Amino acid sequence: MSQLLPNFLKQRAYLTPNRTALIFEKEKWSFSDLYKKVEVYAKKIASLDIKTQDSIAVLLSNSPQTVIIIHALQQIGVTAVFLNHRLTANEMVFQIKDSGSKILISESQFENKLEEITQLYNDLSIISEVDIEELDTKKNPILNEFRMDDVCSIMYTSGTTGKPKGVLQTYGNHWWSAVGSALNLGLKEEDGWVCAVPLFHISGLSILMRSVIYGMAVYLYEQFDEKEINQQLLTGNVTIMSVVSTMLYRLIDDLEDKRYHENFRCMLLGGGPAPKSLLESCLEKNIPVFQSYGMTETSSQIVTLSPEDSLIKLGSAGKPLFPSQLKIMGEGKPLELNTLGEIVVKGPNVTKGYLNREEANLSNFKEGWFYTGDIGYLDEEGYLFVVDRRSDLIISGGENIYPAEIEEVLLSHPMVKEAGVTGVNHSLWGQVPCGFVVTTQSLEADELINYCHERLAKYKVPKQIYFVDALPRNASNKLLRRKLQDLI
Amino acid sequence: MSQLLPNFLKQRAYLTPNRTALIFEKEKWSFSDLYKKVEVYAKKIASLDIKTQDSIAVLLSNSPQTVIIIHALQQIGVTAVFLNHRLTANEMVFQIKDSGSKILISESQFENKLEEITQLYNDLSIISEVDIEELDTKKNPILNEFRMDDVCSIMYTSGTTGKPKGVLQTYGNHWWSAVGSALNLGLKEEDGWVCAVPLFHISGLSILMRSVIYGMAVYLYEQFDEKEINQQLLTGNVTIMSVVSTMLYRLIDDLEDKRYHENFRCMLLGGGPAPKSLLESCLEKNIPVFQSYGMTETSSQIVTLSPEDSLIKLGSAGKPLFPSQLKIMGEGKPLELNTLGEIVVKGPNVTKGYLNREEANLSNFKEGWFYTGDIGYLDEEGYLFVVDRRSDLIISGGENIYPAEIEEVLLSHPMVKEAGVTGVNHSLWGQVPCGFVVTTQSLEADELINYCHERLAKYKVPKQIYFVDALPRNASNKLLRRKLQDLI
Repeated sequence: MSQLLPNFLKQRAYLTPNRTALIFEKEKWSFSDLYKKVEVYAKKIASLDIKTQDSIAVLLSNSPQTVIIIHALQQIGVTAVFLNHRLTANEMVFQIKDSGSKILISESQFENKLEEITQLYNDLSIISEVDIEELDTKKNPILNEFRMDDVCSIMYTSGTTGKPKGVLQTYGNHWWSAVGSALNLGLKEEDGWVCAVPLFHISGLSILMRSVIYGMAVYLYEQFDEKEINQQLLTGNVTIMSVVSTMLYRLIDDLEDKRYHENFRCMLLGGGPAPKSLLESCLEKNIPVFQSYGMTETSSQIVTLSPEDSLIKLGSAGKPLFPSQLKIMGEGKPLELNTLGEIVVKGPNVTKGYLNREEANLSNFKEGWFYTGDIGYLDEEGYLFVVDRRSDLIISGGENIYPAEIEEVLLSHPMVKEAGVTGVNHSLWGQVPCGFVVTTQSLEADELINYCHERLAKYKVPKQIYFVDALPRNASNKLLRRKLQDLI
Repeated sequence: MSQLLPNFLKQRAYLTPNRTALIFEKEKWSFSDLYKKVEVYAKKIASLDIKTQDSIAVLLSNSPQTVIIIHALQQIGVTAVFLNHRLTANEMVFQIKDSGSKILISESQFENKLEEITQLYNDLSIISEVDIEELDTKKNPILNEFRMDDVCSIMYTSGTTGKPKGVLQTYGNHWWSAVGSALNLGLKEEDGWVCAVPLFHISGLSILMRSVIYGMAVYLYEQFDEKEINQQLLTGNVTIMSVVSTMLYRLIDDLEDKRYHENFRCMLLGGGPAPKSLLESCLEKNIPVFQSYGMTETSSQIVTLSPEDSLIKLGSAGKPLFPSQLKIMGEGKPLELNTLGEIVVKGPNVTKGYLNREEANLSNFKEGWFYTGDIGYLDEEGYLFVVDRRSDLIISGGENIYPAEIEEVLLSHPMVKEAGVTGVNHSLWGQVPCGFVVTTQSLEADELINYCHERLAKYKVPKQIYFVDALPRNASNKLLRRKLQDLI
């Protein structure tokens, strides 16, 4: 039988009703305020034609209303499918259909996108926040307990095949992720966590989950603005913030000679190891940086490096969270220390699989271990070094970009015979995607770039297209993406 | 399938090898030091004729050696049966046999008791720490993972029947108890927990479990000595201490005009609500007292009251830990607020049952809820008030005393016809047991007291015996222990 825990938000509102749950601009909600709002919404959403563990897609900005909707869905055990704002209507419709969502909750600022979506998927029922207010109220739909195996959220991620896969994140995954993080970072009554990363990413959603599990305030921002955030970090109200390198650079630049309040205790840095220069700047400014390694499939960080170790173990991702485990595999066997192999992880924060992807599940999960596809090694003290992200993943300003997905689009162009995509370094975004194509006849780069723009979210569109005679491949004709750069 | 987590101590020694694990007198062990010692012991104990989930009884004092043995048993998945030092040999042998233990690990200071035990149970193999050192070494017995459903420890507790029952405490129970406590009290890197309560009680053992799960130092004391502890609490090295009222009185008395270091953040008080005068003294001396309600079956606290609420909600036990739930039942139905009924609890920290006590398990566990037998109510804000401990439990200096167990001994005397035992207030111990008997012929109180001394641990022996004509009983002839006091 799956483990049961009390409904997170309901329990939190019972235990510490007066603690601050959420701060947004000039507004503030206690857990009791939040629960009251959420209860109303949950009862209204429950009046729709849905039942427990059905999916509803959400296309929503970082706002208190979104927080309320996310919690409302949890109250009635409905799975939220989080759509990245930056996707094209085509990409969104794929995820909506793949997840079996018949309802999309969204808001007026996405009006244009919603029109496109409607054209592509006529039967979809699109509901705005305003519509929710006008729904009927169902009696007693609120769950007293969450079943840890039930799916709380679905976020799509791509892989080598190019088709995005829905990662099933259970209530248990979120719970254990929050607990593992608390055992690592500690937990203080005065903690407050800045959320200026998108709620549709696991980095953002995991902050909301921690908030109710810990009884901790979230300082929510619609967008990342270094001036606004720095102002907050100087006050001492907040103690922790989730960032990617790009954000940290901008914060430090803007900070100049000022120093954060001494209460501020953790920059949780995701999206790959930080460059030495960035760590040194942080050290100089007394900003404690916890680097981390994680993915949608591990419900945020699974490995972290403490600030004390950040320069001694430069480039390392650190050690696993307490409930999680780590090993390096090669040719079906665990490898010795200091030997490169596939990073394999295990823990109650790791997804139970991809939605309706039997094949991917069979190849990625073995005996309770998840094969990340990332390449790395453990040093003699057990610190993880990530050498290559899976599927030659490109991380651009914190967004994951999968070359295969872009290659698929390039290859769909009638004059493209072969296509390869890789990341090239970029001073602001870390990396940006670049395309390499073999064509059947002469073609302009701009034409291909426009072609991509129509089919891909903007951040996925190659910044450069190189026309080449052949792509680097191995003996079995597999594309060697890592060697693409040599063609420049 | 039962959930797996990494072997607690092994994982802790990998993640934070250099953090302090244990401090005893002038000695100090890091988690790495501790694990190395434990590994040696585990391999030696594994060479005995035992297998995973067999039981070994332990009769050990609060010492580093005991900490090592407790962890060593966990490393090889052997269940530890904790014997209270103060029990008679007869009582101990009952627990050893009932738990199916063929081996008892003990130490020279219990020599006399061990001789008595040997006389009563010839086949028992008694091993001292010195003997362990001389055992063979088994290869690779150390578990990589703990199965959360496996039984880690057994502690005996009595009930209405008078026969002690073995409470099965799983690895999961200890894990969730530690996590629930951290979510309530917070968790700081500088935390250190004073353990001056016995390791054979759940109050002591739970500190050891938290230590490895949190990566926190335990300041271990063989005995409670207010002067020594106060000295420690003044330094700022320790931040939390587990106490019962008796200990807290003695600490405060000895403290005089001095004040604890500002790092000290929590007196975790077990064993019933504190009197107002004690809370007021603590408030005046700036000592934050967290009152708690719990039992062996809940693997330590399950309900706590924060210092802010301690005077507003005087006499309340507080609210449940986050993963746990609470309700008040009467006649098979949950009761309204402010209505007296049986306290019923649920949570992953609650025991899965009593060893080999099918009947007690059937009557105490229903639909995942544990019926404590304690009487209480919830106020309008959901705070628990415990009005009567189960089976008229007497709590004397932190030890649980069950009247039924003493009554059974009194009734076994040839001249005693009826017997009732209740607690009467005592300035130092909180309560002490007093006996009320109806005899067939005239008898001296001293004779009965001596009779008890031969059969019961000293703290259980009635301090007074009253000879009466009849005992107060209800219509169905059930003894009304609460009315015994009126006979004085």
